[in-house]
Amino acid sequence: MSTESTSATVPRYLTGDQHGLREFLDKFDVFLFDCDGVLWSGDHCFPGTVETLELLRKNGKQVVFVTNNSTKSRADYCKKLEGLGIPSTVEEIFSSSYSSSIYISRILKLPENKRKVFVIGESGIEQELRSENVPFIGGTDPAYRRDVTPDDYKQIAEGTPAAIDPEVGVVLVGLDFHLNYLKLALALHYIKRGAVFLATNIDSTLPNSGTLFPGAGSMSAPLIMMLGQEPTALGKPNQAMMDAIEGKFQFDRSRACMVGDRANTDIRFGLEGKLGGTLGVLTGVSSKEDFVSGPVRPLAYLDRLSDLLGVAK
Amino acid sequence: MSTESTSATVPRYLTGDQHGLREFLDKFDVFLFDCDGVLWSGDHCFPGTVETLELLRKNGKQVVFVTNNSTKSRADYCKKLEGLGIPSTVEEIFSSSYSSSIYISRILKLPENKRKVFVIGESGIEQELRSENVPFIGGTDPAYRRDVTPDDYKQIAEGTPAAIDPEVGVVLVGLDFHLNYLKLALALHYIKRGAVFLATNIDSTLPNSGTLFPGAGSMSAPLIMMLGQEPTALGKPNQAMMDAIEGKFQFDRSRACMVGDRANTDIRFGLEGKLGGTLGVLTGVSSKEDFVSGPVRPLAYLDRLSDLLGVAK
Repeated sequence: MSTESTSATVPRYLTGDQHGLREFLDKFDVFLFDCDGVLWSGDHCFPGTVETLELLRKNGKQVVFVTNNSTKSRADYCKKLEGLGIPSTVEEIFSSSYSSSIYISRILKLPENKRKVFVIGESGIEQELRSENVPFIGGTDPAYRRDVTPDDYKQIAEGTPAAIDPEVGVVLVGLDFHLNYLKLALALHYIKRGAVFLATNIDSTLPNSGTLFPGAGSMSAPLIMMLGQEPTALGKPNQAMMDAIEGKFQFDRSRACMVGDRANTDIRFGLEGKLGGTLGVLTGVSSKEDFVSGPVRPLAYLDRLSDLLGVAK
Repeated sequence: MSTESTSATVPRYLTGDQHGLREFLDKFDVFLFDCDGVLWSGDHCFPGTVETLELLRKNGKQVVFVTNNSTKSRADYCKKLEGLGIPSTVEEIFSSSYSSSIYISRILKLPENKRKVFVIGESGIEQELRSENVPFIGGTDPAYRRDVTPDDYKQIAEGTPAAIDPEVGVVLVGLDFHLNYLKLALALHYIKRGAVFLATNIDSTLPNSGTLFPGAGSMSAPLIMMLGQEPTALGKPNQAMMDAIEGKFQFDRSRACMVGDRANTDIRFGLEGKLGGTLGVLTGVSSKEDFVSGPVRPLAYLDRLSDLLGVAK
């Protein structure tokens, strides 16, 4: 971890501190929210989440939902929030699949004949690539959901166009519930032939049903081992995601606050992005001790997000 | 790399040295052979391989074929050698799947109710587990070749016997051309519940059609990333493989020689196993420079294995 991400000061504890809360809220125009562990846990929305977001919006704050979930498009994610009873718009959502698409379409300078993306991932990535007019292959295409054949080895080795599309200039790896040997072999060979190696995010696991399952980072792991090369990761805490968020919302970083439950991803993301503030909540992964005496400390912390409702009028 | 595996002496170049070859051969009773890059390349048997093996056998030398290939059983591998025109017996073959089975059945002391193995791999592993009477699940069972369902998450999280077999005490990961999300999720949860994490071998890639494809190590990579834990690997250069070979053939290590084309696996395997000798050949991965001035040096080297035929009568 870089030294920039550490903060030696003791974070302010704001739960129950009416005037401290008022002072804190007045400092910011924009609140970036990590979602799971902050607004909800699994399928269970925390009490007060909806009211807290309402309070912020009423006070003229811009709310942004920042998620490393790469399997869903922003529209899918909006529906998920709706299902949990949280009002939101597609414009308020920033996912790692969207961040990746923006990075490919606006930041990577790909040669004219190398603009295609080979996708390991689900439909969320495909929808966001389409929204940025980025051509792609792989993804949910059933043609890639099959066993590898002796012909595949030969054609991949020879680079025949039937197996290796010469226009592929990027390999983008996200969470793929249909990962298989063929996709890994193709991704390996595209990168060896010069394609840029990107990952929507590098979270090795994904919470589900109260435990952990393989995450997007696990899909990149075989490629990292084979290539001896790390992907450029577009999700939190990578600053490519912050740059993309800023590019879209055009905010003043000194007037923005990142809210999260994980010191080493969410809070680090805000600190390294030089935001005006970071706010930790204790309803997720990090403990009070992590926030108060760990290597990465937020500017302030709360027992739970809804403690913001206790702000002085 | 441990310092034990390095050898500061300059290896002896034996090609064309009739008397040097005689002296070298007389030192050993057992020759352990790496196969691909030494005896053949891909599907192409090197000229003189058959005659060289014949010479060794005629001189009363024990020949052992040592392979990290985990997809084939010894019987399968014997057929492969036959197909290349190389006479062999099952007894002369030592594969990482066999090594793994021996390790599980004879070395791991598993509690009575934790003797089952969850296999990521192909039929070679299954055949060798059967040969040692080790019960297993997973592997090529079609029940595991399917998409993950919402019920899977719940049942795996809860550890219901329909999803998580309480008798599984080992996860063994080899090369699996049918690797999928479900198998990775199950392996993760078995290991988190206390199963021993084993890998047949950790070669990240596998040569095929003149290039490289995902190898057994790539199958372990997601688990290593998620767990932050390395498996015990049973293939070269891991000494568990050497112990198993010695256990079977009961030879004097000082009278055994490892022959290989890779300094950092084959030669290292022989040096760390404290064999009497190591012999490098230049028909595979390592170069003359690697052998002569690299950190891991064989006792002697040849341009090609068949140069042994030039030995003084």
